[in-house]
Amino acid sequence: MNQQIIVKQFPKGWVKETDFELVQAPVPSIKDNQVLIHNQWLSLDPYMRGRLMPGKSYAASAEVGAVMVGQAAGVVIESNSKEFKVGEHVLSYSGWQSHHVANSELVKKIDVSGVPASAYLGVLGMPGVTAWTGLMGICEPKPNETVLVDAATGAVGSVVGQLAKSLGCHVVGVAGGKTKCDYAVKELGFDACIDHSSSDFKDALKLAVPSGIDCVFENVGGAIFEHVMSLMNPFSRIALCGLVSEYNAQPYGNQQIRSILVNRIKLQGFIVTDKPDTWPSIIDSLKEKVLSGHLKYKETIAHGIANTPKAFIGMLKGENFGKQLVKLD
Amino acid sequence: MNQQIIVKQFPKGWVKETDFELVQAPVPSIKDNQVLIHNQWLSLDPYMRGRLMPGKSYAASAEVGAVMVGQAAGVVIESNSKEFKVGEHVLSYSGWQSHHVANSELVKKIDVSGVPASAYLGVLGMPGVTAWTGLMGICEPKPNETVLVDAATGAVGSVVGQLAKSLGCHVVGVAGGKTKCDYAVKELGFDACIDHSSSDFKDALKLAVPSGIDCVFENVGGAIFEHVMSLMNPFSRIALCGLVSEYNAQPYGNQQIRSILVNRIKLQGFIVTDKPDTWPSIIDSLKEKVLSGHLKYKETIAHGIANTPKAFIGMLKGENFGKQLVKLD
Repeated sequence: MNQQIIVKQFPKGWVKETDFELVQAPVPSIKDNQVLIHNQWLSLDPYMRGRLMPGKSYAASAEVGAVMVGQAAGVVIESNSKEFKVGEHVLSYSGWQSHHVANSELVKKIDVSGVPASAYLGVLGMPGVTAWTGLMGICEPKPNETVLVDAATGAVGSVVGQLAKSLGCHVVGVAGGKTKCDYAVKELGFDACIDHSSSDFKDALKLAVPSGIDCVFENVGGAIFEHVMSLMNPFSRIALCGLVSEYNAQPYGNQQIRSILVNRIKLQGFIVTDKPDTWPSIIDSLKEKVLSGHLKYKETIAHGIANTPKAFIGMLKGENFGKQLVKLD
Repeated sequence: MNQQIIVKQFPKGWVKETDFELVQAPVPSIKDNQVLIHNQWLSLDPYMRGRLMPGKSYAASAEVGAVMVGQAAGVVIESNSKEFKVGEHVLSYSGWQSHHVANSELVKKIDVSGVPASAYLGVLGMPGVTAWTGLMGICEPKPNETVLVDAATGAVGSVVGQLAKSLGCHVVGVAGGKTKCDYAVKELGFDACIDHSSSDFKDALKLAVPSGIDCVFENVGGAIFEHVMSLMNPFSRIALCGLVSEYNAQPYGNQQIRSILVNRIKLQGFIVTDKPDTWPSIIDSLKEKVLSGHLKYKETIAHGIANTPKAFIGMLKGENFGKQLVKLD
């Protein structure tokens, strides 16, 4: 049977497990040019919260009554396509289910000889390419500039910080809790990491950027982002990648718009799927760094499809450490 | 005697006339390479509010006890410089005073044969170059795109709108009151202008941009800007030039940061004095348009230096119509 998690209703405020439902359906048969994939890994990403609302976002909403959307890594178990053989590892936009039938042109082979399949959902997948795109394409940091990234140990933030270090930048992270901050500094090589849950967060952040901030890779939004904006240098750049602190709440009223004016800041939003042509070469570069040990990553793994909603909610609350995945049987 | 308006104290909240003081001082004598200028026109501009505070801004603060800063147009009445003859019309950063002694390298000749001297403080001066720089350099509008500008009949906004019309854009203004809006549409050629003081402002603005907004030239900030941000198109651009509604008040809490993300907006602050090399060619282009009748402008003139603080406060409240000037005797 195909184990599926469907969207029961769009969440109001914080996502609840009861907004989803686990159902069983027959595994569908495949037609010409299709493959049947047995998923091994489901990807959980903050952007998915934006799909769980009827309003305008940068992609179509999930649908109430349908399988929740998302990417997955799996193995081909039946093929009616010349392109794919049974046993090959692939990525697809399967959604939260154990089995997925896909047209072959929407399926991507992955090479699991040097890295695990799960990496293609994180450091070598959408999150890694997101980090590269925002940092290199919008922030364009120069050596010795100060780069700040929040959600610093997440799937995106951890790549941002390590890339910026490799460019010779002073890199400061913001993360939730001492364990994550220690990891950012000791394992990932950040120059500093400030715990946003500590009572002296604002002062500590200011002390960590004695020359001000030149580049921000923004994942969180809310009061953290507002404080970061107050510390920006003239002609600084902000790549706006996410606002995870606001997805389940009222939008935050940001009082630092004046900093954009006074400091001639460029603040630019971006969505990594806008430039699909850039992905292959970016992934090649990231893979080289992973294989040579210059780009580290961490994963938080939930087990079994039934735990997917819970893991998703935990990720939105920052309970994950690195890339949040669900391992299927 | 030199009539001067000095800053008595930095305003708290709204500027008051009592924050300034009119004093008389001897007209100073000039040294080598200096000129003595008798001012005819004082320029009043929204940016000056930012100088009346001790905090960090994009330029040095005015000083308590010193003449209030600003540009002026006048006539050379004494010269110890080979570059300037008595009787020549010039611009200088005189501040609010009747007479000004300046080093010749800080004085700029103006040609008043085809246009009045006052134009060099407005359409052919800092405001005109500001309009050009933000629109052409940041917004980069394409034909048929929708361009929105607020403070639409001001010294900057009126140039923005007319330039955008000349590029083939759909141009919508926001201004305070029916008279200004009628002027924007009937005289300046805007496609629409919405009165932000009307009770149906939000709905009216939405109706005026049926295809959404591609470019914003932002002068006002606050709730108007927030609403504008909610109407932006994917890949739209915002040139942040001013936040006049917030200069005398608490900063506004802008809840539309998410629109920047979802719509991949580029929001960029700029200060026209950052690129002095670009000014001469921009002013030449603007002058050609003025002389050929393709660029109109309006002035509000206060008379006598004693009325300068009152006129300044009026301008910050939007009581001016076009460029606010003070005519000196």
